[in-house]
Amino acid sequence: MSHLLTGVPASPGIAIAKAYRLDMDESIPPRKEIEDRAAEIQRLKEAVESAKADIDRIRIQTLERLGSQKAEIFEAHLFLLDDPELTDAALARIESEGVCAEFALYEVAAAIMDALRSMDNEMLRERAADVEDITRRVISKLEGREHHALSELSNEAILFAKDLTPSDTAQLNMDYVRGFVTEIGSHTSHSAIMARSLELAAVVGAGTDASHIRTGDTVILDATSGKIIVNPSPNQMEDYSERKRKYEEDVSRMKSYIDRPSLTADGVQVELAGNIGGIDDLEKVLANGADGIGLFRTEFLYMGRSTFPSEEEQYSVYKHVLEKMNGKRVVIRTLDIGGDKELSYMQLPQEMNPFLGLRAIRLCLDREELFRTQLRALLRASAHGKLGIMFPMISILSELREAKRILDEERVRLVQQGVVVSSEFEIGIMIETPAAALAADLLAQEVDFFSIGTNDLIQYTMAADRMNESVSYLYQPHHPVILRIIQLVIQAADRHGKWVGMCGEMAGDASAIPLLLGFGLHEFSMSASSVLPARELLSRLSRQEWSRLAVQTLNMSSQSEVLDFVNDQLRSEAKL
Amino acid sequence: MSHLLTGVPASPGIAIAKAYRLDMDESIPPRKEIEDRAAEIQRLKEAVESAKADIDRIRIQTLERLGSQKAEIFEAHLFLLDDPELTDAALARIESEGVCAEFALYEVAAAIMDALRSMDNEMLRERAADVEDITRRVISKLEGREHHALSELSNEAILFAKDLTPSDTAQLNMDYVRGFVTEIGSHTSHSAIMARSLELAAVVGAGTDASHIRTGDTVILDATSGKIIVNPSPNQMEDYSERKRKYEEDVSRMKSYIDRPSLTADGVQVELAGNIGGIDDLEKVLANGADGIGLFRTEFLYMGRSTFPSEEEQYSVYKHVLEKMNGKRVVIRTLDIGGDKELSYMQLPQEMNPFLGLRAIRLCLDREELFRTQLRALLRASAHGKLGIMFPMISILSELREAKRILDEERVRLVQQGVVVSSEFEIGIMIETPAAALAADLLAQEVDFFSIGTNDLIQYTMAADRMNESVSYLYQPHHPVILRIIQLVIQAADRHGKWVGMCGEMAGDASAIPLLLGFGLHEFSMSASSVLPARELLSRLSRQEWSRLAVQTLNMSSQSEVLDFVNDQLRSEAKL
Repeated sequence: MSHLLTGVPASPGIAIAKAYRLDMDESIPPRKEIEDRAAEIQRLKEAVESAKADIDRIRIQTLERLGSQKAEIFEAHLFLLDDPELTDAALARIESEGVCAEFALYEVAAAIMDALRSMDNEMLRERAADVEDITRRVISKLEGREHHALSELSNEAILFAKDLTPSDTAQLNMDYVRGFVTEIGSHTSHSAIMARSLELAAVVGAGTDASHIRTGDTVILDATSGKIIVNPSPNQMEDYSERKRKYEEDVSRMKSYIDRPSLTADGVQVELAGNIGGIDDLEKVLANGADGIGLFRTEFLYMGRSTFPSEEEQYSVYKHVLEKMNGKRVVIRTLDIGGDKELSYMQLPQEMNPFLGLRAIRLCLDREELFRTQLRALLRASAHGKLGIMFPMISILSELREAKRILDEERVRLVQQGVVVSSEFEIGIMIETPAAALAADLLAQEVDFFSIGTNDLIQYTMAADRMNESVSYLYQPHHPVILRIIQLVIQAADRHGKWVGMCGEMAGDASAIPLLLGFGLHEFSMSASSVLPARELLSRLSRQEWSRLAVQTLNMSSQSEVLDFVNDQLRSEAKL
Repeated sequence: MSHLLTGVPASPGIAIAKAYRLDMDESIPPRKEIEDRAAEIQRLKEAVESAKADIDRIRIQTLERLGSQKAEIFEAHLFLLDDPELTDAALARIESEGVCAEFALYEVAAAIMDALRSMDNEMLRERAADVEDITRRVISKLEGREHHALSELSNEAILFAKDLTPSDTAQLNMDYVRGFVTEIGSHTSHSAIMARSLELAAVVGAGTDASHIRTGDTVILDATSGKIIVNPSPNQMEDYSERKRKYEEDVSRMKSYIDRPSLTADGVQVELAGNIGGIDDLEKVLANGADGIGLFRTEFLYMGRSTFPSEEEQYSVYKHVLEKMNGKRVVIRTLDIGGDKELSYMQLPQEMNPFLGLRAIRLCLDREELFRTQLRALLRASAHGKLGIMFPMISILSELREAKRILDEERVRLVQQGVVVSSEFEIGIMIETPAAALAADLLAQEVDFFSIGTNDLIQYTMAADRMNESVSYLYQPHHPVILRIIQLVIQAADRHGKWVGMCGEMAGDASAIPLLLGFGLHEFSMSASSVLPARELLSRLSRQEWSRLAVQTLNMSSQSEVLDFVNDQLRSEAKL
C-alpha cells in the first residue's frame, strides 16, 4: 500500500528512487577478549589505512566538487586518524588488555569525545562529531560493513535521515543522490540551505513518521509541494514520472535564461542578484547568471574560528569576490553579529531579548576597532570592482551618520597613506527596523541605496520572534502591512533618486516577485538557485500591469487574501 | 562643605530636611551563653509582645491611610510572630542551650528563611523578607534599639536607602517623610511608581555615592531635576527655600484644576484619564480629578497569588471600579501577561526573546478558557458603568476578529442565561506593534477606539529592548519616527470616526502633550499625579496652533531637535 507523508518543501525538485536510510550507528561495540593480540593489532591498522584511503578519496571528490574550504573537513579527519592519542592508544589497549579492536578504538575515542564535549570552546566541541565520524568509519571497516559513506552510494537514492550535518552534505554523491528528506529542520535550517545551493530536491521537517521508511522502499519525493509518497501505485508512478519530466523541462528552460538580461515582459530591466556567505558560494552565483551580489553576509568570515579575521584576510576575500564578479555590483554587509549569531571568541553580555539587543551596527559602533578593521579591508578592496558597503540594523539617522563618519575617517587615513581607494563605491543601509522604514525619506538623503531585509523587518513589525513556534503564525511576508512598508520605502527612495533592493527570503519568492516589481523594487537578491526561475517569471510579467495590481493588495485584510489574488492573477496571465 | 549628587527624578517635589538612613541591619547576633534561662525566656517574650504592639499600630495606620490591601502585610507579620515554628522554637533553644535570645531567634529565623528561599513558589520566597523584617524588629527590641520603623519617624526627614521594598513604602509616615533617595532603580521601578502615587519627592538610581550620606546630614532634595545637595550653604538654603515655596504654590495652583474641565486655551475639550493597577489606585485617580480611567492593567489581579482569580473575584473588582468612577469611562485592558511579566502558578514556555513571544492577546487566544473567564467578568461588570474593553498586543486583523468572536460568544451566552450585559460598552485595542499602527485604518473599522501604548510601540519600532541598557539610547519617545506613527494612527482613526487615546508613559510627559494635542489625540491616560499638571498645561495650549507646530517636527532628524523645538515654543508662549 502506498502512503503519503508531508514536510516542508526546502529545495524544489521531483525525484523517484529507492530510499536510503542514513541512521547514525549509535551502538557501543561489545568488549570481546581476543587470543592473538598481534593479529588484532594488524587488523586495526589495516582498517585505519582502509578508512584513510576512503577519506582521502572523499576529500578529493569534495575538493573538485565543492572547493577547498569544504574539503578541509576531510583533511582534518585524516589528521585525526594519524593522531597517536587515538589510533596508537587503541593499539596499546589491544596489546595490554587483549580486547578486540572495535572495543579498544571505541573506548579511546569515547574518552576523547567526552573531553572535547566538555570544553568551553565551541570549535573543539564540534570536533567531537568528527572524532565520532572517523571512529564509526573504522569500526565499519573492522566489522566488514559499509560505512554510510554518502559519497560512496552507487545507486540512485533518496536519502532519509533524522537530520544532515554539514559534513554529511559535503559528502553527498551527486551522481546518485536524487534528493533527501529529514525529520527535523525548517526552510532556513542548514540542510535546507545546502540543498538549495546543491539544487537538490529536499523536504525537511517531515516528522518521525519519516523514520519508518526503510532503505529499499520506493519513494516519490515531490519537493516542490513537500510530498513524500512511499511505495507508490503504478498510477502514481506514471503521474509523477510525467510531472518529473515536465519539471526537468522547466528547469532546462530556466537554464536558457542564464545569459539573458533580467527584463520584464514590458521591457523594464531590474537586477537579479545572489546572496552569498563567502567565496564558496560564488561559483553558484556565477553559474546561475546573477546580475551581481546583493548581499555578502560577512559574519561567516568571523565564524568557525578562534580569533577575529585580520584586515589582510578580509581584504583578500573581498578583493577575490569583487574581481570574480568582474564589474558586476557586489554589496557587502558589515558585520551583523549579536542577536542569534554569536562568536565563540567574543564576549557579549547576556541579553533578555537578544533580537532587540546589541547587534549588528549597534555592536560595531560600540566596538569601534572591530568595525574599523573591516571598513579598512572594504575600502582597500573597493579598488577591485564595483562595491556597495551596507550597514545592517540602522534604526535612526544618528547611527548612519556615525557609521559614515568612521568610514570616512578610515578612507582619509588610507588615502593619506597612499592606498588606492575607489571614489565610486556606494554606501547603503539595510531597512530592517520599522523605525528605518518609517524614516526612509530622511535616510534616503544620506545613502546611495537601501536593501530591505524582510526577515527582520517582518519580525519587528509583527513583534514576533521568527524563531519562536508559538508566534510563527505572525510571520507573514505577504501581509498587507508588510507590503505597505515595502511600498513606503521604495517610494521614499525613488523621491530621492536612490535605488532599493531586497535581500530577505521574500525577494526570491515567486508569489512576492510580481508585487515587489509592481511597487518598483530595483534589485532582488536571493539564493543563487532562485535567480533563473525569477528571471523566467519576470519575463512573463508586465511592470505596468503589476504596478496597478500591487496597490490593490494594500487594503486587503490578510496574507491569504493577497496570496489568492496574486496566484489568481498569475494563473489568468498564464492562460492568456 | 556642601556637595551635590544627582539621580533619576522619579517623582517631583522639593524637600529640605535632615537625612534619615534606612540601612538594613545585616549583622548576625553573636552567640552568648546566658545564666538565667528563665529570665532570658521572659526577655524574648516581652520583646515579641512589644514588637507585636508596634506592628499592630502600623497595621492600623496603614489601614487608615492606604487601605485594607496594603494593611494585609502587617496582619501577616502578626501571624508570623504567633507561629510556634518561630517564637516557640526560639524559646525552646534558650531553654535547651542556654543561649541569648537574639542568637536563638536569629538562628531559628535564618533556617526558616533559607527554607522559604529555596521554594519554587515565588510567594513563599517573598515571605522570607517578611520573616527577616519581623526578626530584625524583635532583635532591635531586645537590643533596646529603635527598629527602623518608617511609620514611627517623629521628625521631618528625607529617607536614604539602597532601595525601598513595597513593605517599606507601605509604612512611610507621610506626616514626617518629606522625600526619599535610593541608590538603585529607574523611573519605572516599584519605588518610583510608589512615590508618584504618594506624591512624594523622590530621586532614584543615585548610585553608591548616596550611601555616604548619614542620618542627620542636612539635605536639599530637588526631585524635579534629580539633584541632591548635602549640607547646603546658607545661599543654597535660601535659594531652595524660595524654589520650594514657588513649587508648592504651583502645586496648589494645580489643585485648583481638580474640578475644571480638560480644556485647551482655544476651547477644545480632551480627556485626561488615569492609569490604575487595581482598586487601591482608584482613590488617587478620583483625588486628582481625572476624567476617567484610560488603562486598568488587570494583570495585577493575577499577580502575588497562587491561583487564577475567579470570574466572581474579577467581576467584583471591575464592578467596584466602574461604580466608583460614577459614569466616567473606565477602559479595562484584558490580561497582558508574558514578555517580562510572569505568573508563578502558570507554566509558560521558555522563550529566547520573550518580548517578541507568546504574550498578551496571543497568550489569551492560546489559553482560551483563561480569556473567557475574564471576558465574562467584564461583560457582567459592563452593566455598572461606562466600560471600554481593550485587547493588548494586537498585530493583525485576524487576532482582533478572533478576540471579538470569543467576546461575542460569551456575551450571547450570558444574555441567554438572563444576565444583564450593557449594550453600550466599547471595544478597543492597544496600538503597540508597528503592524497595528501601520494597518490602523483597517483596524479602526472594527473597533470603537484605539489606545497607543508607547512603551512597547517604541521598543518594537526601534527594535530595541527598553529594559536593555546597551540599546537604551534608542528608546526615544520624541523621535520624529515615533511622532509619525502616532500621527498616522490618529489620522486613520479620525477617518473612521473613532477616538484615540494614549496610555504609555509619554501621555503624561509635558514636552509630549503639546505635540499629541497637535496631532489630535483625544484621550491622555497617565499616572494620577500627572493629571493636574497636564490639565494646567493644556489650559495654556492652543490646539490650532499646535496642529500647525506639531507637523513641523515630523521631518526633523532627531529627538533632541524635536525637544528643543517644543521647549522653545513653550518658553516663547509663556513669555507672551
